[in-house]
Amino acid sequence: MSTATTDIAAEIRSISQKARAAARVLASIDTGRKNRVLARIADELVAGAAAIMAANEKDLDEGRERGLSEAMLDRLKLDEKRIVSMADGVREVMALPDPVGEVTGMWRRPNDLLVGKVRIPLGVIAMIYESRPNVTVDAAVLCLKSGNACVLRGGSEAHRSNMVLAETLQRALAAEGLPIEAVQVVPFTDRAGILELIRMEGLIDLVIPRGGEGLIRFVAENARVPVIKHYKGVCHVFVDEAADLEMARDITVNGKTHRPGVCNALETLLVHRSVAESFLPMLDKALTDVELRGDQTVQALVSRAKPATEEDWNTEFLDLILAVRVVDSLDAALDHIAAYGSQHTASIVTRDYANSQRFLREVDASCVMVNASTRFNDGGQLGLGAEIGISTTKLHAFGPMGLTELTTQKFVVYGNGQVRS
Amino acid sequence: MSTATTDIAAEIRSISQKARAAARVLASIDTGRKNRVLARIADELVAGAAAIMAANEKDLDEGRERGLSEAMLDRLKLDEKRIVSMADGVREVMALPDPVGEVTGMWRRPNDLLVGKVRIPLGVIAMIYESRPNVTVDAAVLCLKSGNACVLRGGSEAHRSNMVLAETLQRALAAEGLPIEAVQVVPFTDRAGILELIRMEGLIDLVIPRGGEGLIRFVAENARVPVIKHYKGVCHVFVDEAADLEMARDITVNGKTHRPGVCNALETLLVHRSVAESFLPMLDKALTDVELRGDQTVQALVSRAKPATEEDWNTEFLDLILAVRVVDSLDAALDHIAAYGSQHTASIVTRDYANSQRFLREVDASCVMVNASTRFNDGGQLGLGAEIGISTTKLHAFGPMGLTELTTQKFVVYGNGQVRS
Repeated sequence: MSTATTDIAAEIRSISQKARAAARVLASIDTGRKNRVLARIADELVAGAAAIMAANEKDLDEGRERGLSEAMLDRLKLDEKRIVSMADGVREVMALPDPVGEVTGMWRRPNDLLVGKVRIPLGVIAMIYESRPNVTVDAAVLCLKSGNACVLRGGSEAHRSNMVLAETLQRALAAEGLPIEAVQVVPFTDRAGILELIRMEGLIDLVIPRGGEGLIRFVAENARVPVIKHYKGVCHVFVDEAADLEMARDITVNGKTHRPGVCNALETLLVHRSVAESFLPMLDKALTDVELRGDQTVQALVSRAKPATEEDWNTEFLDLILAVRVVDSLDAALDHIAAYGSQHTASIVTRDYANSQRFLREVDASCVMVNASTRFNDGGQLGLGAEIGISTTKLHAFGPMGLTELTTQKFVVYGNGQVRS
Repeated sequence: MSTATTDIAAEIRSISQKARAAARVLASIDTGRKNRVLARIADELVAGAAAIMAANEKDLDEGRERGLSEAMLDRLKLDEKRIVSMADGVREVMALPDPVGEVTGMWRRPNDLLVGKVRIPLGVIAMIYESRPNVTVDAAVLCLKSGNACVLRGGSEAHRSNMVLAETLQRALAAEGLPIEAVQVVPFTDRAGILELIRMEGLIDLVIPRGGEGLIRFVAENARVPVIKHYKGVCHVFVDEAADLEMARDITVNGKTHRPGVCNALETLLVHRSVAESFLPMLDKALTDVELRGDQTVQALVSRAKPATEEDWNTEFLDLILAVRVVDSLDAALDHIAAYGSQHTASIVTRDYANSQRFLREVDASCVMVNASTRFNDGGQLGLGAEIGISTTKLHAFGPMGLTELTTQKFVVYGNGQVRS
């Protein structure tokens, strides 16, 4: 799929301009109409399952020829069950409240101007992602519900699947009399296409890259339009002096082993020195399948623990490996998290009220918890309804992003002839 | 002031690291303490006026030698009155509510987790600005009140003034036992220093450039950290068919002539065809000092009007020039604003309820008004209390940015041992 760079540039510009025009229409339609489109998308996905699977089968064949791993092929695969599950996901988004139009505040000024802030869509959102074709539907549906047009650029290995899914989405838009350019899949799958897309200042309002760190860095370093990025999650649990040790053990086991390959999995455990002697042997027994890397105290108390290196404190293992450090105080735990944390998730296990309050206040992370597993830092688990991604930078959104995070606010002013003097 | 690039890089990194450490302290101090620092800053500014003016006089001398314009020298100048006015501005920020710690929502999940969102500072904010030294104090004070550390890089022509102001700010911080690195002025005034600063990912959370379009483009194109930018304001007024024409005239005159050189000044006037014949002659008389550039209808009705070019519809004149176009309908006005507006400010003058509602809903701009002058799109006028800038992109903030826009939100979770199953 090699196309001359100038053609790519022209095509991406044309796609972006059409998306901008469609966004204008989407911004002012009511919730009922958006929900009707979503209902139709769910129905069309199920009705068109055979065509989707046929296209997906070709992607899978090519993937096998190209020697993709079984794990990659599994992520790529769309069977009937997965298509039904996608459709169910669409209906869930349909049931969520529409953030657009919400008046978040209104006040009267001394000169009698009535000033308010109202939620509006961001405009055009570009999603850049890798193999999973279900992201095409998930992202499009979240964008539509929040009144945004979207330009989707999936991985080359899922290209045929994505094109068929885009047609399904566009059929539903057309049936409701809405511009099909509200959802477009970029037909180029090389990086030149990405590069053009992320430089469409004035046409694209936000880029969300989802995928490996290489992709995210490429987008962050080359984009001219705003990017919301998700780098690593080095999540911490601190077992306080006043912890319920069985609760601490359960939270540690859940954080580390429930799904080790995800960003809210636990990576570093901090243990208060005064409970280390009782707690670490409990942990040793509970985490038999997990490699422990610890400081000298940990190694003394758990013979199988390997020495932790400086790098381990900075590492998102995404694997059955846990770094463990014994600390002298809550302050030392807070210092460690400030030095090594990735501002993602931190949880304290404690019965002490003052320590819980300090931890909640002082830890700089998108989600700070007391007595709960780090695995709850997730849009669905926190109650956002659905999640388009997790932001690890603080601008615009910090942590899981739901529908509200796909909107911004404008000022509205009701006057009766006011001028400035 | 030419320093080897490697020295600059090391120095900027060191400044940024110190700012990050200071930000951690600032993030968890209470409002009372922040206000005490602000009170002290106000006092120190007045008490130290002589030293500030002495440094400023050297900047002015050098400016004169370098042939700066009278307008530039005036912007640079700090006399006693301006210093007192800066101190008053600091006391106004002191009186504003502290956004940090505000709980913007809290809900209980089916598994009994209590989940909330709490406002927190962004962290470290870099401001890059040009000649006015008062920005040093304004920006520092807004950052401090919102719990952020700041790194300030002002224009070379104000360098001595900025350094003395920074010392004043730091004296107040030290007197309250807070790290002086909460406010730092970058000692380099060439672009190499900017380039290093805007690439300090992980240390700087946000860059706000304030100045000419060249500076803003340079920052936007080279930054690795998030940027909030302010490009041009091509503001519109639409005089509807159902407008009170005297009100429309007053709003037009105020928008265009009250302060033509600012971003919320009126640049393009749209007039409904059915009122053009009565309204344009009124305008002709009311705007005798303003050059009018119009379409053919405008030229037919106002003999002094020059022909408007396509470029005029896209231009922020910042001068006593007004582009005027006659349109056939509200739809045509909305189309014009969508095509040429800079998403800054638009106002409709109308007595028609439905038209006012459509305009408020459909115009994509940071501030959309009914029957009011575009000049009200300003943090102070809208009631934000103070303004650190205006964002013309939608991410994080859209329009005037006050203290709240210098914060973000984190999730807090109160559990009692919950794990995911």
